[in-house]
Formats: sequence, structure tokens, C-alpha cells
Amino acid sequence: MARNVSFFAIFITCTLLSIPALGASAGADLRVDPEQIEQHIMELSAFGRNPEGGVSRVAFSQADLDGREYISGLMAQAGLQVTVDAAGNLIGFREGSENLPPIMLGSHIDSVPGGGNYDGDVGVIGAIEAARVLHDNGLILRHPLEVVVFTDEEGGLTGSRAMSGQLGTEALQEVSHSGLTIGEGIRRIGGDPSRLAEAKRSPGDITAYLELHIEQGAVLDDAGLDIGIVTGIVGIKWWDVIITGTANHAGTTPMDKRHDALLAAAELIQAVNRVIRQTPGNQVGTVGRIEAEPGAPNVIPGRVVMSLEIRDLSSEVIDSMYRHIAREAATISEKAGVSISFRPIPFDAVPAPTDDRVRRLIGEAVERLGLSGREMPSGAGHDAQDIARIAPIGMIFVPSVGGVSHSPKEFTKPGDMANGANVLLQALLSIDADGLGQ
Amino acid sequence: MARNVSFFAIFITCTLLSIPALGASAGADLRVDPEQIEQHIMELSAFGRNPEGGVSRVAFSQADLDGREYISGLMAQAGLQVTVDAAGNLIGFREGSENLPPIMLGSHIDSVPGGGNYDGDVGVIGAIEAARVLHDNGLILRHPLEVVVFTDEEGGLTGSRAMSGQLGTEALQEVSHSGLTIGEGIRRIGGDPSRLAEAKRSPGDITAYLELHIEQGAVLDDAGLDIGIVTGIVGIKWWDVIITGTANHAGTTPMDKRHDALLAAAELIQAVNRVIRQTPGNQVGTVGRIEAEPGAPNVIPGRVVMSLEIRDLSSEVIDSMYRHIAREAATISEKAGVSISFRPIPFDAVPAPTDDRVRRLIGEAVERLGLSGREMPSGAGHDAQDIARIAPIGMIFVPSVGGVSHSPKEFTKPGDMANGANVLLQALLSIDADGLGQ
Repeated sequence: MARNVSFFAIFITCTLLSIPALGASAGADLRVDPEQIEQHIMELSAFGRNPEGGVSRVAFSQADLDGREYISGLMAQAGLQVTVDAAGNLIGFREGSENLPPIMLGSHIDSVPGGGNYDGDVGVIGAIEAARVLHDNGLILRHPLEVVVFTDEEGGLTGSRAMSGQLGTEALQEVSHSGLTIGEGIRRIGGDPSRLAEAKRSPGDITAYLELHIEQGAVLDDAGLDIGIVTGIVGIKWWDVIITGTANHAGTTPMDKRHDALLAAAELIQAVNRVIRQTPGNQVGTVGRIEAEPGAPNVIPGRVVMSLEIRDLSSEVIDSMYRHIAREAATISEKAGVSISFRPIPFDAVPAPTDDRVRRLIGEAVERLGLSGREMPSGAGHDAQDIARIAPIGMIFVPSVGGVSHSPKEFTKPGDMANGANVLLQALLSIDADGLGQ
Repeated sequence: MARNVSFFAIFITCTLLSIPALGASAGADLRVDPEQIEQHIMELSAFGRNPEGGVSRVAFSQADLDGREYISGLMAQAGLQVTVDAAGNLIGFREGSENLPPIMLGSHIDSVPGGGNYDGDVGVIGAIEAARVLHDNGLILRHPLEVVVFTDEEGGLTGSRAMSGQLGTEALQEVSHSGLTIGEGIRRIGGDPSRLAEAKRSPGDITAYLELHIEQGAVLDDAGLDIGIVTGIVGIKWWDVIITGTANHAGTTPMDKRHDALLAAAELIQAVNRVIRQTPGNQVGTVGRIEAEPGAPNVIPGRVVMSLEIRDLSSEVIDSMYRHIAREAATISEKAGVSISFRPIPFDAVPAPTDDRVRRLIGEAVERLGLSGREMPSGAGHDAQDIARIAPIGMIFVPSVGGVSHSPKEFTKPGDMANGANVLLQALLSIDADGLGQ
């Protein structure tokens, strides 16, 4: 009963503030239980625990199977009907009161080898907790609800690629970290790779997709903020940069007669950094891999092959940065008497902006909950980027202490996980009420 | 008879010019036969010929044995008594008229795998040709003469290290390019590794050592000069440079939060080049090897290990360059938030300056022969650098076309080889007459 009074009070408040009444009313005082979330995170961390206290729960391993079994139990306790689609995605379903496409919440529980206890897990546990709160409070949404544990996120977004129709059959032959092929792995976790197309959803099938995730960077932690409202998942382009000079004797070749490929590469590495930093924005550019040939201390390098990666929310920005770097390379090439060429590496990561309406509703939830937050891109890839091809998406980040991720040292404070789950719950309620204007 | 007239004429000329009479008189009009040299170079190139037209005549191989057999024949034809010392050095000996320590001429005929027809060979063929000219003209020197084909130069100056007492017995266990250990190889070519000490010479045992060699660089070829009068063989120091930053996610780590080890390495590579070039001198500095870890396009490098090599005729210059580079590294380290350390690699290559008196006599020979030349350091290692520990040394360089060496494309023009051999012969005669003031 106390709840009804509260609903009413907020209904009045929101009406006065011109916030859509339904968006903020039904369940607006509902909150997740921080202890439940922390307990479930700890229980889940038992499956695949590694000596350093994190998990090595690679997709399709026994630890992955055990973890999914545990999650299935949590889903059932939260009143969700548990199924597995043809791609192995573990789905908890809840009916809605109207005949509408479902709202989907999701993330993953598989880890990298030597991973931690928060990457993916927070989003899954948070979504189930949101469903549990609705269940325990007897609140039926207008839209059906789906909570999804996507298959093999860390191995290449396998489950979300299947759901968005991008997983070709040739990918089923690739060997995963588990030692099984993707196809064998999907079969092991209860999917059916021969019926992969059945896992596919189409535009219009999903009202909206929300994903809660740890930041995996240090922006929120450094700034002391509670929530990151994700503007999108960045696109990624890769190149191999090939610098060809002249290998020569390091003793008999005077300094002014050299065409040192590594010296030119060094100048280009600095140019990449300068170009990326001198333009305002969140774009990042990285040279992570380098090989100099022949690679002996007493031979001037004749050839260098290095990687170039540029990420940004905008493909135009990526292309503009690349063109600027290529111009710098041309100058270096001429000055150093070497040739420099860029070979694009095919890589399927186009920018995936989040939906404006979903982002606005997340922002309003952050505000209503009295939390601090900021808009920010996701530099890392997530299942959300695939679902963005078929549905409006939103992502909610919570702080990673020290920005550490893909490591047993990964840590997110219980209070931050609860904040994120409350934003997820409230954004879900707003979308359910608002319907994104549909 | 014509020769005697000529001797007399030059005797007068030299007296007038205040050049020591003996130094320039006996044999001053003697010249090598360019066709003999070219023919012998071509004949020698048959042993170990590779498909590209060079030789793969690594020490202790059958090709090396065959080549030494051929050279022994040439030595005998030139009136030299042929022996092999305990280290396998092939020595052609000629008596002198006085009881003096011998003058030694030498080089090597072993090659790198995939080598050419001039590196080492020109010095050996040139020295034998000088001996042949003396023999055919019946000219007996005051000093005994030794023409030495040193064992396994390319594998690590094995023969000259033994002769200067620096080859430890542990080196005999090392496996050479031939597949044999150095010890087995020495035995194969007629030496006796159990009596290695017998190959050792002491200070005073050799009046002077002269080595004719191709430049293996492009200084003479670029400048259009005939002869390089070597000021010394440079010393070499090696370091491993270890740059430690923080490996991190290339997507989620903003540009201003990075501690990118490769970016710092790039700045240091440029600093090495700048430091080495901004100081006048012939010093060279090279970063030839680099590894970035973990080495993935999407991970900011956390650690880089790279080589640093500095060469110069002066140890003080090498040390000064190193200190300057280390200071630059400290600045980079602070600015980039990475640590940089230098680990010296033990390496036995101290600078070996040539003897002032020998160098002067070589210079005078160049002038008398009407050739152009310049003083220059040898950036590459040679047997002469070991013999410098026990005797005054001199080295004569002839041009390498395009500076190419250790390659089947190595080429030195017949005329240039003859010029070098004439300088060798004339310098030998001057030293024999002059005695270096002893």
C-alpha cells in the first residue's frame, strides 16, 4: 500500500515536470536489492574460478555449462520461462499485457581465458534482478520481456550475430577457446546449428534492447561518476602498415646514407598519436603490433609491418583520421626515402549508435534516481552492437575500478552494480510505458 | 734491367723529396698483374658457388676445404712455403734477408651463407699476388713474409682470435654454420684444437699486419675514390632497451590515459638517431630489433624490448653517445609515464685503431701510385681487429659497388682490386724498408 501512495506522488510530480506520465509512474519507486545482486555475482563466480580469483569460463566449456545451469535457476526463480534458441542463446521470457514486440535485456556470462567476475555477468545478473523485482511486485508490463544470455560473446559475439542474422555457416567451423568448433559448442549448450536461421530476429521483432555492462575503462572511476549513458559502440578499422626501406650493414652504412624502415615507422607511430589527439573527440588510434625485418641488432631494418587501429562512433571520423595519417605517412615516406603502404584488414565492426529515445529515457532514469552520469562511447565491443542492426538499443555503464578488465583483478563495487541495475529497471519501465513513440 | 734504371730514378726522386730512401726505392716500380687477380678471384668463386652467382662457402664446409686447397696451390706458385697452424690458419711463408719478425698480410676466404666473391677473397688473392710479384722479380725482403688465410672469419674471427690468444677452449664447442663444432671444423681443415696455444703469437712476434679488403659500404663508391686508408676498426656496444608501460584495452582507454610502451619506444628510436647525428663524427647508432608485447592490434603495448647498437673508433665516443641517449630516455620516461632501462649485452668488440706509422706509409703509397683516397673507419669487423692486440696493423679498403656486401651481388671492379693490391705491395715494401722505426 505504501507503494501506491508513492506511485501517486511521483505521478503528480512527473506531470508537473512534463515528463510523460506513464514513463515515470508504474513502478517508479521499485528498486533492486543490492545484496541479491552481490550474492548472485559471487555464486556465479564459482563456475570456472581461476587461482587468481577471477574466472576462466570460456564459451562452451564445462564451466560455461555450469554457469548457464545456475543462471537458468535464477531466471526460473524470477518467474521467467527459460528456453534456448538455435544459436544457444539462453532466454528467460515473461508475458506482457499487450500484443507488442518484447523489450529485451541481455549480456553474457562467458569470459576470456583468465577473466574476471564482472564483464558480462553484471548485465545478466542485473537484468534477472530487474525481472525478479517485477515478478515479486506483481507488476505486469505492457510489453513481453526477454532476458538473454548471449552465446560466446568473448569469442566473437556469436549469439548476437546469430540473432541479428550475421552469423554465416562458415563461422560454425571456427575453433573456439574451448577446443570445440563454434558449431559443436552451440550443440553442447543446447542449440542446434543446423537450424541457425530460427534464432534470427528481424527489424520490428524487438521493441528495444538494453544492456547493462561494466565500463572496462577508467573514465567513470577517474571522474567519480555513477553511470555512463552510452552514446554508441564505436566502429573499428584495422590496417597493416608496410614500410619498406633498405636493409643494410649497421656498421658500414653512414647515418646519412640510410633508408631505415624502423626509424620511419617510429615517426609514423608518433604521427598517429598526434593526429588522433589533436582533433577534439573521443576517437582512439593504436599501433599495437610491430615487426622489423630482418630484426638483428647489427642490421638496419629494411622492412617494418605494423598494425593501425582507429575507433570512433562515426565512420566519417575514422576515415578522416585515416586520411590525415596517410598524408603524414606520405611526408615521412618522402623525407626518409622509404615507401609506406596501408593494407585494410577486413573487420566487421561498423559504429553502432544507441537510440536517441532510449538514451534519453536512460538519462531521465539516472536523474530520477539521483545518480551522477555522463554520456560516453563504448570503446569495447558488445552484443548490443549486433542487436543495433535490428532494434533500438541502449547501454548503461557502471564504473570499473582502475579501468581494469579482462583480468581477475576486474572489480565493480556492489553499490555501483545496484545503481546500474536500478537504471536498467527504471529505463525498462519507461520504455514499456513510452513505447518509444510506436 | 729496365727496372734497375727505374729504381735509380725513383731513388733520386725520393731523396729529393726527403722520403726515406729505402722505403720508396727497392721495388717501388713493381706492380701487380690485374688480370692475374681477376682470374684468381674467378677461379676461387667456383668453390661453393651459389645459384645467384656468389658463394656459400661457410668455414669448414667442403667448399671451404676445396677453396683452401686452391689457395695453397697459388701460394706454392708464388714461392711461399705452405703450412697450417693449430687453429687451422693457412699460412704461406717466405724467408727474409735479416733476422726480424715477419710482416704479415692476411684476410679470409670463408663466406657467410649466401655470400659473394669479394669479401675476404680480395685480400687473400691480393696478398698472394704481392708475394708472387716479389718472387717473380727475385726481390728478397729484409723481413720474412707471411700470407695468412684466417680460419672462419665470418663465424666469429676464429683464426685471428686464436692467433691473438683470445680463443677460449669453450668456443671450440660452438656449432658453426657448417654443422660442425668449431673444434671439429679446425681439425677438418688440418689444425689441432688440442694444441690451440701453439697458434698464439705475442707482441713483438709480428712487425706489422696489413689487410686489403672491400669496403662493404658505399663511402668510396659514392665519392668516386680509389682507396680507403682505414683509421681503425670500430668498437661495438650492444644494449637491450626495455620499455615498460601499461598494456590496456585499445578501445576503452582514452588517449590521455595511456602509458603506451611502443609510443615511448618510437620517441626513443628517433632520439637515438638525433643524438648520433647531431655530433660530428663517424659514429653510427642503430635500433635493429624490436618486440612489442602483447603485440595485438587491439591492445596498447605494455612492454617493448629493442636493441641498441653504437659503433665508433673511440670507446669514449660510444660511452658519451650512450649517456646522451640515456638522458633522453629519462626525459621520455617521465613524460610518457613509462620506465626505460638499458641492459648491456656482453660483446667483445673494442675499438682497434690502426697504427699511425703504418697508416702514414699506406697513405704515401696511395700518393706515389697516383691514386685518390681518404681516411675512414671500418664499420665492419675484420681479422685485423684481433691482430691489433699483438701487432701494429693497417687496412686498405677498395670500393664495393653500391656498398653491397654479404650478398651474391657484391662486386668490386678488377681495376679497383689491382689498385688495392698495388697499395698493399707498396706499403709492404715501405714497412720492410722503414721497419716502423724499430
